[in-house]
Amino acid sequence: MKKVKVGVAGYGTIGQRLADGVAKQGDMELVGIADFAPTLAIRALYEKGMPYDLYLVDGADQSAFEKLGIPVKGNFDALLDQVDIMLDSSPAGVGAKNKLLYEKKGIKAVFQGGESNEVADVFFHGYANYEKGVGRDYLKLTSCNTTGLIRTIDCLDRAYGVKKTAITIIRRVADPGDYHRGLTNALKVDKAPTHQAVDLMTIMPHVDATGILVQTPVTHGHIITVVVTGKNKITKEMALEAFEKHPRIRVVSTDDGFLGNASFFKYGRDLGHARGDLYEIGLWEDSIVESGDDLMFAIHIPQESVTIPETMDAVRAACKMQLTREEGTAATNQYLGIGKFKTMFK
Amino acid sequence: MKKVKVGVAGYGTIGQRLADGVAKQGDMELVGIADFAPTLAIRALYEKGMPYDLYLVDGADQSAFEKLGIPVKGNFDALLDQVDIMLDSSPAGVGAKNKLLYEKKGIKAVFQGGESNEVADVFFHGYANYEKGVGRDYLKLTSCNTTGLIRTIDCLDRAYGVKKTAITIIRRVADPGDYHRGLTNALKVDKAPTHQAVDLMTIMPHVDATGILVQTPVTHGHIITVVVTGKNKITKEMALEAFEKHPRIRVVSTDDGFLGNASFFKYGRDLGHARGDLYEIGLWEDSIVESGDDLMFAIHIPQESVTIPETMDAVRAACKMQLTREEGTAATNQYLGIGKFKTMFK
Amino acid sequence: MKKVKVGVAGYGTIGQRLADGVAKQGDMELVGIADFAPTLAIRALYEKGMPYDLYLVDGADQSAFEKLGIPVKGNFDALLDQVDIMLDSSPAGVGAKNKLLYEKKGIKAVFQGGESNEVADVFFHGYANYEKGVGRDYLKLTSCNTTGLIRTIDCLDRAYGVKKTAITIIRRVADPGDYHRGLTNALKVDKAPTHQAVDLMTIMPHVDATGILVQTPVTHGHIITVVVTGKNKITKEMALEAFEKHPRIRVVSTDDGFLGNASFFKYGRDLGHARGDLYEIGLWEDSIVESGDDLMFAIHIPQESVTIPETMDAVRAACKMQLTREEGTAATNQYLGIGKFKTMFK
Amino acid sequence: MKKVKVGVAGYGTIGQRLADGVAKQGDMELVGIADFAPTLAIRALYEKGMPYDLYLVDGADQSAFEKLGIPVKGNFDALLDQVDIMLDSSPAGVGAKNKLLYEKKGIKAVFQGGESNEVADVFFHGYANYEKGVGRDYLKLTSCNTTGLIRTIDCLDRAYGVKKTAITIIRRVADPGDYHRGLTNALKVDKAPTHQAVDLMTIMPHVDATGILVQTPVTHGHIITVVVTGKNKITKEMALEAFEKHPRIRVVSTDDGFLGNASFFKYGRDLGHARGDLYEIGLWEDSIVESGDDLMFAIHIPQESVTIPETMDAVRAACKMQLTREEGTAATNQYLGIGKFKTMFK
Repeated sequence: MKKVKVGVAGYGTIGQRLADGVAKQGDMELVGIADFAPTLAIRALYEKGMPYDLYLVDGADQSAFEKLGIPVKGNFDALLDQVDIMLDSSPAGVGAKNKLLYEKKGIKAVFQGGESNEVADVFFHGYANYEKGVGRDYLKLTSCNTTGLIRTIDCLDRAYGVKKTAITIIRRVADPGDYHRGLTNALKVDKAPTHQAVDLMTIMPHVDATGILVQTPVTHGHIITVVVTGKNKITKEMALEAFEKHPRIRVVSTDDGFLGNASFFKYGRDLGHARGDLYEIGLWEDSIVESGDDLMFAIHIPQESVTIPETMDAVRAACKMQLTREEGTAATNQYLGIGKFKTMFK
Repeated sequence: MKKVKVGVAGYGTIGQRLADGVAKQGDMELVGIADFAPTLAIRALYEKGMPYDLYLVDGADQSAFEKLGIPVKGNFDALLDQVDIMLDSSPAGVGAKNKLLYEKKGIKAVFQGGESNEVADVFFHGYANYEKGVGRDYLKLTSCNTTGLIRTIDCLDRAYGVKKTAITIIRRVADPGDYHRGLTNALKVDKAPTHQAVDLMTIMPHVDATGILVQTPVTHGHIITVVVTGKNKITKEMALEAFEKHPRIRVVSTDDGFLGNASFFKYGRDLGHARGDLYEIGLWEDSIVESGDDLMFAIHIPQESVTIPETMDAVRAACKMQLTREEGTAATNQYLGIGKFKTMFK
Repeated sequence: MKKVKVGVAGYGTIGQRLADGVAKQGDMELVGIADFAPTLAIRALYEKGMPYDLYLVDGADQSAFEKLGIPVKGNFDALLDQVDIMLDSSPAGVGAKNKLLYEKKGIKAVFQGGESNEVADVFFHGYANYEKGVGRDYLKLTSCNTTGLIRTIDCLDRAYGVKKTAITIIRRVADPGDYHRGLTNALKVDKAPTHQAVDLMTIMPHVDATGILVQTPVTHGHIITVVVTGKNKITKEMALEAFEKHPRIRVVSTDDGFLGNASFFKYGRDLGHARGDLYEIGLWEDSIVESGDDLMFAIHIPQESVTIPETMDAVRAACKMQLTREEGTAATNQYLGIGKFKTMFK
Repeated sequence: MKKVKVGVAGYGTIGQRLADGVAKQGDMELVGIADFAPTLAIRALYEKGMPYDLYLVDGADQSAFEKLGIPVKGNFDALLDQVDIMLDSSPAGVGAKNKLLYEKKGIKAVFQGGESNEVADVFFHGYANYEKGVGRDYLKLTSCNTTGLIRTIDCLDRAYGVKKTAITIIRRVADPGDYHRGLTNALKVDKAPTHQAVDLMTIMPHVDATGILVQTPVTHGHIITVVVTGKNKITKEMALEAFEKHPRIRVVSTDDGFLGNASFFKYGRDLGHARGDLYEIGLWEDSIVESGDDLMFAIHIPQESVTIPETMDAVRAACKMQLTREEGTAATNQYLGIGKFKTMFK
């Protein structure tokens, strides 16, 4: 089978991981990445020996790269001429402009959560609505929190039926290495309802959702507490049974040493994963509690890497590599090595 | 009327504020405070000119005080001989030992949330169960989070009836000036259910409650998100109407500049309050959302000072200064200046 | 003697404290403060009962204040018509524009460190160059770090002669309550030399100075380590003797419980000072070490309040209230209650 | 040549990296690692497929490992029987006890900085005193800060001669994933002089050194500012020339995007290094300033990984694999891939 040819626009926090993700897919070919300036990420790419070809987006100053000896393969146009589909992780708003170029070239694209919903034909989640993306040209991924959250709600919904949910997002305010944004000794409350609850209802319209988001001065992953009401009562045991079968949910406990968001970051590093990344969300077994008919639990969202698997799913759907949710997500999981050790400690 | 004579054991974060709180009550007399070592708090008391008399608990090294010129009025026994009631804010566990002394002397006592429930006859909250404390000898206050949380649940319950609640406590991990505990770039998840939900059910046994607590690396106040299910649907308007009438709940909005927990700390400082303290909890008007029959909102708990009013209530109940919740809390509110400006910005 | 009439432009972090500082000076009269919008600080002023009259700067929306019931005394022009001197703590850059108004009205002004040096006739420090400010119209204060640092260098220089200094500023990145700036899990290195070293040389041109500034994610005060080379060797004992005599330097030790910057903040709160502020810098006795001919020590800078005394000095100099450094600083110290208990624990 | 057989005791933050470091040395063989409990690091080792054999130290509960299916190769004794030299990164104090076992077995050992100096024959630094370690049985590495600091002082000393230094250590208080220690919104000042200055003088007795250490609430690397006085004046250009030749010093600038300690962490992750680690210290070109005869600059210490190269050097010295500093450090650098791209951006 001919490999699907993929390009990545924007080699930032997400773009780097998308490129690595594509490079791992046996049935995709990473044609190259495109960026604007010799950032630390580009310098590191060069120090690694240019495993990916570099193209420059319009307006980039090629001489800045030449001065450093960083080889440039061509301009954005040259990249677009070679690919079937673009993964666009440009700064928010740029993707909408890029879309005009993609349309002109007749290539497909997957946008990240920062773009407005209008940019896409489908607001996409690999597990919740894969089939809606099949054969479509422009898909937009859910944001990191929504992606992880939907894994759990969709999981419970398919197993038992979910009626409503109320979430509290305890958000990390910056990524490791960010200096342009930050928060110091403060928790910041955003106006409610938070967009992730609204987005969930767009993807899963039969579920009532609301929520509050609080920003916190940390960098290693969001934590979300989820209150769920099932169509019928969902017990802790029922929930655990469903969660443990899900390849992209890693069930852990504080007794095992997973004391918080930073434990996952440490664990990813100890696993030797590139950048210490994890593709799975974490779910604390000992956070699951029942109250009347409600179920409550806490999850961990590795904000830098969590959307990579669902983006690979999106390529599979858009390019009709697999036609069903089961086949599409299974292929992604296999290439990314997801789910292999999930139940090792049970 | 003869003033009730009060002593304070333990002049730490809470003890200092209890002493200040008693000193403001026109119908109480602060006989003195007791502590163990010349801490920063004691040094500051001395630098202020000893507004409160200092007694030493057993085992204290009097020479350490003498070396600094800090006057000592007497030992713990001498303090106990003069008081009607002790406010015990000793380190957790010490209160239980002190109780033996209080019993011997035949004096009453109010313990803080760190002590075990067994130390007291009544687990007390000024608004939720004032009458249970009337005339009793040993009362234990709810902890800071529980105290603030119950203000809101009791408020809704009395107005409309509450069936259940699920809370997420986003906890500040240390107080300003703490070096013996801390958390750095991490969110820590505790085993669920968190004790505050359990404690709420002890005080309000007709309400189902559960919750998850996450520690965060900040010092200026906890934030709790609360999901509440009423006996009948409680709308945002209904909730607001009840909250705005409550003297110890300050309704604010992010549009007014209350962006998070640190805004309350700043506001308390700008008000010129001693230590920048606030006695009221904050409640964000623009955090209140509905989801099906549920109501959700976020509150701010000023951990250092929030229990002071309810502790004053406890003295009033124990010493039968006022026999009803309405009269007891009203007296406390008047002396502490609570509620005067609550609705100024509406 | 007629009191000097003072106005404050900009009621932010510094402006609030300048107003409070002026209000404490027995020989000054605070005519009023001017601001732009009903910030938390203005709301707190209103909740306190408007102890200071409020004037609105040009462009302010008066209706926003009226809607909240906050009384407005007049416009900026009306304030300027009544004062002898303005303390300008407007956002950086605004002071330069305001100066044109001050010149037109023929009134003096003191600017804060954020303005460019050109705005002023004299770059001023109460202890280092008081006489240069006497009778001058436009003075600019040194920034918070420079103000505190110069207290120590000038102190050693007058006692023993100082040849050079190399400083490391460990800077707090935000004030309590700031959400518009912050840093999360990062130390940020600025290009060297840092401006405080350059500013020191402007004020004390006979001293060679350089330094590096590192931003840290905390809010309660900067810490500066200072390496000083005297004209002749300065021993730890010599340094201590000089520091302990300085009214605006508070010598402390870690053994007393002053473990870091947050201890000073706690101490200021425990003292019952408004906002928990301290006017003195802290200096750790047990940080003073010698290395060859060099002396090294660490100081604490309470960034919100440290420039208030030197600004009062500036008013005294500009308005010829006192003609010498000794008399001017002594008057400020007396009215602000500085130095009373400085040596209590020695 | 027969490979030197190496074991690692304690598979924590340092131990994991020591094991990885040994595994990269073409002339060493990692026999196995020893630990006590199924920590996250051990679980990750298992999830990776046990690339290193696991031995249990005395007192470990083997059944805890068996329950998880983690294979155990043998006890500590069995490990010691197979190795030539142990790298001991046990918790502080345990190394001294282990030494008795090493002596009994007649094997050599290298201890980390947490052990007391008495445990070792030589206090070792690969660049500063390699020859002192040649053929010796028990070596102790300098701590992370001292290791990085000495790289720079030794570098300048060999090139130009150094007379004295005064350092300010801006210390990260915890590692990513630590929950047992932390600091929140505070800078903590330790008593001076800090031990790193004292340790430097032990290794380089002809240099006068002193310093102050301040703890900060971050996890990604220490920053040290260094004031150095040469035997003759060292200019910025002279210093840069020496630093740029040093394989274990990476000269960077803020203009390139290295804005602080977190930039190095990000860069190590972007490089795809295991755990995002860097073996080199960072040195900011635009932090280098002169003041009179003094030179001042700032360096970054990656606390988790910086001692790994010097520990490999220690094995080489102790086991006489190379007899000179030049050969020993060159071999380590080659196997660890150090220095290859150091000057790429110049």
